Amino acid sequence: MPSERKFQELTGSARGTIREALSQLEAEGLIYRKDRSGWYVSPKPVTYDPTRWSGFMTYVAEQGRVPATETLQVKTEKQPPAVLDIFGKGVRNPLYRVERRRSIDERPVLVEEITINPALAPGLARHNLNGSLSSVLREVYGLAVTRNHVEMRACALVRHTAECLGVKSGTPGLLVIRTSYDARGRVIEYDQEYWCANAIRIEVDLTVA
Amino acid sequence: MPSERKFQELTGSARGTIREALSQLEAEGLIYRKDRSGWYVSPKPVTYDPTRWSGFMTYVAEQGRVPATETLQVKTEKQPPAVLDIFGKGVRNPLYRVERRRSIDERPVLVEEITINPALAPGLARHNLNGSLSSVLREVYGLAVTRNHVEMRACALVRHTAECLGVKSGTPGLLVIRTSYDARGRVIEYDQEYWCANAIRIEVDLTVA
Repeated sequence: MPSERKFQELTGSARGTIREALSQLEAEGLIYRKDRSGWYVSPKPVTYDPTRWSGFMTYVAEQGRVPATETLQVKTEKQPPAVLDIFGKGVRNPLYRVERRRSIDERPVLVEEITINPALAPGLARHNLNGSLSSVLREVYGLAVTRNHVEMRACALVRHTAECLGVKSGTPGLLVIRTSYDARGRVIEYDQEYWCANAIRIEVDLTVA
Repeated sequence: MPSERKFQELTGSARGTIREALSQLEAEGLIYRKDRSGWYVSPKPVTYDPTRWSGFMTYVAEQGRVPATETLQVKTEKQPPAVLDIFGKGVRNPLYRVERRRSIDERPVLVEEITINPALAPGLARHNLNGSLSSVLREVYGLAVTRNHVEMRACALVRHTAECLGVKSGTPGLLVIRTSYDARGRVIEYDQEYWCANAIRIEVDLTVA
């Protein structure tokens, strides 16, 4: 974008007014500062509609963008009671944890932690998880999702998550938690996605029946 | 909550570890710092499901909480082309702008700017707007909403908005934009809500048909 000085010349407004306007746009995630080189327009966010079934690889591609997934870590880890509760009775520690980073047009936009019950998908780590995990679970393990529960809240990206995404600690984020169940009510995937806030826009359209 | 020192004693963990855990909980909006008096647990967020039709006054009360609305300002104001475009062809400047602050259990949680076409609701400012605006539009002006388009994105609360909500500038927020249409496709309400991020949780449940 033009420099603050240039904006002053173009508009005849005071420096303070220009700064106020820029900081408002920054708060809304529409522009960002890079190092000391000035202001840049944020890439267009992708639209995510939680009432549709398609996964990241599909809905990003549908919007003419290039999705990519990188598996950072697959581990077998003891989970706290709060996580075991989500999986319900009979689930036994430890569970699988898959950490992945996903990008749009080569820009990292989210880091996710997916928890999976090894009893349902033994040997999961041996498969290629750099694509749609749901496809692997369906095609290799015969696990079909029939219900999704999606929860979202704004958060700040800090520490490890901020580092993985290459953003400053404290950058606005959006936490999307998706719990997927099969027809028998078993939890197939418990996915916690930490998004760069300015990379995602939620959209829901609702019409009277 | 207990002091950081107390946590150290209770858990035997290093100060740095305690601080890291607290700052993670803060980033997720679960706890917050007040002045210099220590850490406090955030009030439970309300759940908002964009696939349901009920308004703020209804869904907050349904969750056993006490909603309140305060009209801060009603003005007639010239809107920029981007806003006029939303209202579509034939709409004429100026439009109504209603600024309201809404609270849950006496804590301010959102500030909203609602834009309304005066041609559809002449004399709107004469009515009591400290409740459900949709009810006023329906009962007084016969305007019935048949379609809602909801858009959400994480943002930072700054300046005027942060002041109105009594939070520090830069506090994580959630911007909820709702455009309501009637059966003829006319925009009845264009509502921009700036929420304290930790006061709201979005939840959508989706089952295969």
